Amino acid sequence: MQYLILESRQFLMFNIPFKNGGRSAFVMEKLSLKRLSIDTYKENVAYMNGRCPVYRAAGFQAMSKIKITADHHMILAVLNVVHDDSIVAPGELGLSQQAFMQLGLPSGTAVVVDHPEPPASMDAVRRKIAGDRLGYRDFRAITKDIIENRYSKMEMAAFLVACAETGLERREILYYTKAMADSGQRLEWLEPIVADKHCIGGIPGNRTSMLVVPIVAAHGMLIPKTSSRAITSPAGTADTMEVLAEVNLEPKRLYEIVREERGCLAWGGTSRLAPVDDILITVERPLGIDATGQMVSSILSKKLAAGSTHLLLDIPLGPTAKVRHMQQALSLRKIFEYVGDRIGIHLEAIITDGRQPIGKGVGPVLEVRDVMQVLENSPEAPKDLKQKALKLSGRILEFDPSIRGGTGYQVAKEILESGKALEKMKAIIRAQGEKTKIPEPGKLTYEVCADSDGWVCGIDNFQINRIARLAGAPLDKGAGVDLFKKLGDRAEKGEPLYRIHAEFESDFKFAVRLAQNTSGYSLGAETEIPKNPEEF
Amino acid sequence: MQYLILESRQFLMFNIPFKNGGRSAFVMEKLSLKRLSIDTYKENVAYMNGRCPVYRAAGFQAMSKIKITADHHMILAVLNVVHDDSIVAPGELGLSQQAFMQLGLPSGTAVVVDHPEPPASMDAVRRKIAGDRLGYRDFRAITKDIIENRYSKMEMAAFLVACAETGLERREILYYTKAMADSGQRLEWLEPIVADKHCIGGIPGNRTSMLVVPIVAAHGMLIPKTSSRAITSPAGTADTMEVLAEVNLEPKRLYEIVREERGCLAWGGTSRLAPVDDILITVERPLGIDATGQMVSSILSKKLAAGSTHLLLDIPLGPTAKVRHMQQALSLRKIFEYVGDRIGIHLEAIITDGRQPIGKGVGPVLEVRDVMQVLENSPEAPKDLKQKALKLSGRILEFDPSIRGGTGYQVAKEILESGKALEKMKAIIRAQGEKTKIPEPGKLTYEVCADSDGWVCGIDNFQINRIARLAGAPLDKGAGVDLFKKLGDRAEKGEPLYRIHAEFESDFKFAVRLAQNTSGYSLGAETEIPKNPEEF
Repeated sequence: MQYLILESRQFLMFNIPFKNGGRSAFVMEKLSLKRLSIDTYKENVAYMNGRCPVYRAAGFQAMSKIKITADHHMILAVLNVVHDDSIVAPGELGLSQQAFMQLGLPSGTAVVVDHPEPPASMDAVRRKIAGDRLGYRDFRAITKDIIENRYSKMEMAAFLVACAETGLERREILYYTKAMADSGQRLEWLEPIVADKHCIGGIPGNRTSMLVVPIVAAHGMLIPKTSSRAITSPAGTADTMEVLAEVNLEPKRLYEIVREERGCLAWGGTSRLAPVDDILITVERPLGIDATGQMVSSILSKKLAAGSTHLLLDIPLGPTAKVRHMQQALSLRKIFEYVGDRIGIHLEAIITDGRQPIGKGVGPVLEVRDVMQVLENSPEAPKDLKQKALKLSGRILEFDPSIRGGTGYQVAKEILESGKALEKMKAIIRAQGEKTKIPEPGKLTYEVCADSDGWVCGIDNFQINRIARLAGAPLDKGAGVDLFKKLGDRAEKGEPLYRIHAEFESDFKFAVRLAQNTSGYSLGAETEIPKNPEEF
Repeated sequence: MQYLILESRQFLMFNIPFKNGGRSAFVMEKLSLKRLSIDTYKENVAYMNGRCPVYRAAGFQAMSKIKITADHHMILAVLNVVHDDSIVAPGELGLSQQAFMQLGLPSGTAVVVDHPEPPASMDAVRRKIAGDRLGYRDFRAITKDIIENRYSKMEMAAFLVACAETGLERREILYYTKAMADSGQRLEWLEPIVADKHCIGGIPGNRTSMLVVPIVAAHGMLIPKTSSRAITSPAGTADTMEVLAEVNLEPKRLYEIVREERGCLAWGGTSRLAPVDDILITVERPLGIDATGQMVSSILSKKLAAGSTHLLLDIPLGPTAKVRHMQQALSLRKIFEYVGDRIGIHLEAIITDGRQPIGKGVGPVLEVRDVMQVLENSPEAPKDLKQKALKLSGRILEFDPSIRGGTGYQVAKEILESGKALEKMKAIIRAQGEKTKIPEPGKLTYEVCADSDGWVCGIDNFQINRIARLAGAPLDKGAGVDLFKKLGDRAEKGEPLYRIHAEFESDFKFAVRLAQNTSGYSLGAETEIPKNPEEF
């Protein structure tokens, strides 16, 4: 049973077919636009004087949404009511920086302020809350309204929660994925194979893309990789690549680089691919919800929009990974396969070892060191990072019909060990714009040592992420954690397990205190070392 | 499958047991409090200068929540970042009017700004989203955090949606009801029977409380009725009673009146009974969700907090009522009974005729006229309002062990027709504070007429509510709709069906246009008149 409360006044403003096509006189009265130097992040805020006749006549309420229009420009904003003429006088409409920029009109422009139409697609959200199944048209209407800034954060939260957990059937995830992809631009590469890889995340130091892209591109397969920056982790691929090269590339330039080098390692934020996801993340993150349906749609819609034809998906499994049980991993893989098949992406999902961080470094500069050691075939290179990168590259190379099933790993190994991958990486770096100076690891350091003898039988991915982030990563490129011991290694009491690097005293103190409190390492008997899920 | 994204920096600020018990030095730096004349309704907003060292050092983000403390006062507020020293200078912290009042400290006070602890009870909300059953402790923690202003609107939306529809089992509704009641004050009347009535709403003109209270109180039964103002309807009992008497009474005064007169008709907003509901409504309403669990908990928690021992619940059933099918009505009644029994309220729920408005007037002044006509036993008095009031009063009177089952209606009728109810109403009005001047119905009038001959076989409750609201009710006391024809009446073409009353030209135009477009009346054959559900 679900009732709909109708807000009559607001509802009516927009649903009565007036014969003259207009509204009542008071709503049409114009206000003079004023830019206020107030930063309201991604939210539009408008400021009206409490004695302003428009405010009084139209029955706006503080904190309600208003619609601001002039010369075919339109934005929605949250209304704050000001009783100080020096900020906003009656007859003026103040806008926060973001709102002012988005409206894109000069100060002094005469604007009309009005009640906004409530987003029509909220009906679909209410149907979802009531237990209905939504179709493609519903998801399309919802994503469109979100992009057009018609949803408040509250409404977005309602949508996300309604879709969370068992809320979405796999068919709905498919529709949602298509709708998200259709909400933004689409890239078209005009090639039979456009490869991509994606990891669902959660594993510190897991910088395989920076190895997979040069290996695959060196083979000649197209792999236009765009990545995000870290949201809750100490480094995203874009943050790490940025240590070596420019990652903020115009779509046109990106396209040229990929044509020339067969691959790239760029930040995905400049192209408007499935942009609805970037808006929803501002609600998902503070709520701490990240449901399967949202994750699958978010990943696959971006790939679809990016023009990928073949995708290798990395699902790390481990006690402190995002996916903690094989059953979960398998069911997640099946959803990805179901949707992938139906949106025309050849998708393979592999379940990988997510028991501990990959490589040694955690944080942009430290991860760059690991990646370069692998590319340079240095004896210091972390073996697990190299193995994982070869495994993933091998599977991607096998998308090429000319490569025999089961031989991809060997082909990848030859490309890497021959130095061709390093060469390709250098070419990509030059093409994107080489950074002249690579920062050093943070100068403030602290070593966390074993408090007893034992074998390393647990490394908490979450805790290592937290410590590295607190130390300043990814903003301070040299900040992070450098691991000396990995699962199965023997540590004697007092022997260093890892080193914290930071650049600023306050961050350093925070990170050290956290590590002193809970190191993230467990030492125990050799029998307690958990099994590698890849070996099941 | 549900993943938790951890915001490390924020998380850590509050969970590391620092040995000195404090935070790092930069967070402790103080800012000078400044009151800004900005009205942000129920939301607290704080303003910090972008060049303020505290802002830069603590890593706050615009639109994030911050905690402001000084001298054991604490509030949470959403941060806006200002780049205009004349609004807020570096070293100052501006607060919106609401936030300033809530903090309750003078301008110039040195305040500390900090990252807030995320509300711990959001874990329970996330468990609910993941499909878990919540217990009393969970609901208690959630309601406590909401009252303490720790939830953003986004977080409240997540909670409400997670609990909507099939989301709450009846046992959870019970726990939630108790938790809501425990979140505020509790009244104690020290009498064996403290009667109350409640209607789930949606029917225009349904002002039975103003008849039931004087009848029941005249019998000597305690009935301390507090009501809400209209939220989406054209009049709540508090709005209508306000035409005759003061309704905004201090709790102490209310108590004296009830002791003296055995009843009252006051606004419930001044006593803090189950206040969490008043906060959640600010999210529920714009989202347009009103789920069963929330409704039941909201109603019963307020009754429990108000000290009611006996409650009669009115569930109107009809094609344009909130409840449209008998099956719905019965299942709703069962939930009410289940919870009522377990919180120690003797509850009876009756399903009533909700096919059309009750009485003739819709809007405060017009409804007062109907009520007074019934009390005065005027031949003009609307029969349906009188019958319904007697029926409800009779059922309540039967809570009295000395009244034989089935005779309550007759007792109520005698009290009403003898003039005792009118006498009691006058006494209550005097006690609450009589209004010297009763406004007239709005002077701008328009009659909506039948466009064909026929029997009235449908009156749309929603549409009549909308028209009355648009005409200005409940703010303009004299605005509303006066019905001349009811279900089953015969109307000839051109005969007036109802009259719109308004006080202001613009409202009047809106209401008339809406009525011209859709009158809310359907005329048809005598056989099309829907059956009264009370006669099933």
